[in-house]
Amino acid sequence: MPSATPKQLAQRKAFGARVRQLRLAAGLSQEELAHRAELDRSYVGQVERGERNISLDNIYRLADAVQCSPVDLFVR
Amino acid sequence: MPSATPKQLAQRKAFGARVRQLRLAAGLSQEELAHRAELDRSYVGQVERGERNISLDNIYRLADAVQCSPVDLFVR
Repeated sequence: MPSATPKQLAQRKAFGARVRQLRLAAGLSQEELAHRAELDRSYVGQVERGERNISLDNIYRLADAVQCSPVDLFVR
Repeated sequence: MPSATPKQLAQRKAFGARVRQLRLAAGLSQEELAHRAELDRSYVGQVERGERNISLDNIYRLADAVQCSPVDLFVR
């Protein structure tokens, strides 16, 4: 796996922080979010910590699970 | 590779169509966009046709290359 640049790591962290924020706003645990999104709980934890280069399909899964638009998962 | 659902394929197509739209609005060829984004031209073509489950890092690369926010690459 090629290593990510500092900019990419910051982008992943910002995305993950937004996922966590919207998950908490929805009153969901990581496990509940993972279940709704049909993703692994440990994967969701990694995404929230900015440790994953998440794909489009999974961005939509998470957005759907917190009933928001993918757009809302990007900090503006 | 697990096959994508019809919904995922539609999401990828919508994303790709938006990339193409913003690329053309910026007056760039696929080759120019690929060069700016440091991606392969054939990969950019596949993304535009909705054939790729693009990752967060590459979403940002394309957004930066057309000087927009990743948010603008999602149809609202």
